[in-house]
Amino acid sequence: MTPGALRDFYDGYIACLNARDWTALGDFVHEAVRYNEEEVGLAGYRAMLERDVLDIPDLSFRVEWLACEPPLVAARLAFDCTPLGDLFGLPVDGRRVRFHENVFYRIDESRIADVRSIIDRAAVAAQVGALYRVA
Amino acid sequence: MTPGALRDFYDGYIACLNARDWTALGDFVHEAVRYNEEEVGLAGYRAMLERDVLDIPDLSFRVEWLACEPPLVAARLAFDCTPLGDLFGLPVDGRRVRFHENVFYRIDESRIADVRSIIDRAAVAAQVGALYRVA
Repeated sequence: MTPGALRDFYDGYIACLNARDWTALGDFVHEAVRYNEEEVGLAGYRAMLERDVLDIPDLSFRVEWLACEPPLVAARLAFDCTPLGDLFGLPVDGRRVRFHENVFYRIDESRIADVRSIIDRAAVAAQVGALYRVA
Repeated sequence: MTPGALRDFYDGYIACLNARDWTALGDFVHEAVRYNEEEVGLAGYRAMLERDVLDIPDLSFRVEWLACEPPLVAARLAFDCTPLGDLFGLPVDGRRVRFHENVFYRIDESRIADVRSIIDRAAVAAQVGALYRVA
């Protein structure tokens, strides 16, 4: 894919997420997708997204920065949402939080096959004034 | 710059950091550089790097994934190091830690002018078995 085609592909993926169109997810995500070096597969990836949307009903993916160089897409995503209960183990409880995710995708066979994501959990912790407990 | 020229430019920047060649930093970094939405300027950026290297004498920047689409560079950096004391407020104390940074750079006037970085601090916290205290 060219950078322009990658961009169109990624726009379609983000639209799919924002529409919660899980049945179309396989058009964008590889059956054997890996997420942060773990093979979660399409079913696991979908389950993760469905859980995110349950926890954050107003979850919306907004692309702030985007760099496409085949076979990679790199996106800085911005979130502005009100999670119902905990988020990343932090007691957000319906408060509004804003944070970013910097995420890379490797495209293989016209599908997202490998995702390396870092979410700015510290920003959320700072906004809810909490300790960020790990493990 | 083309994607290839951007890649060469970024390779030069990373070599500059790994050589601790601070006098050459201005060849790569804009005088008015912004870091995570704060205008730190070249002097502030250099001071940050010098502090990092004091805290982590064996700090080395390794590019794991790289996507260049003008005017953006997106890099997933891998670190494998032994910080002397605290790192991100975590008591690492000479233990070996491995973590990633996903970082975007906007290039302006052939220099890095805007940096949006997220470091996986939670990974470090998990490795030292610590709470990650914020603010």
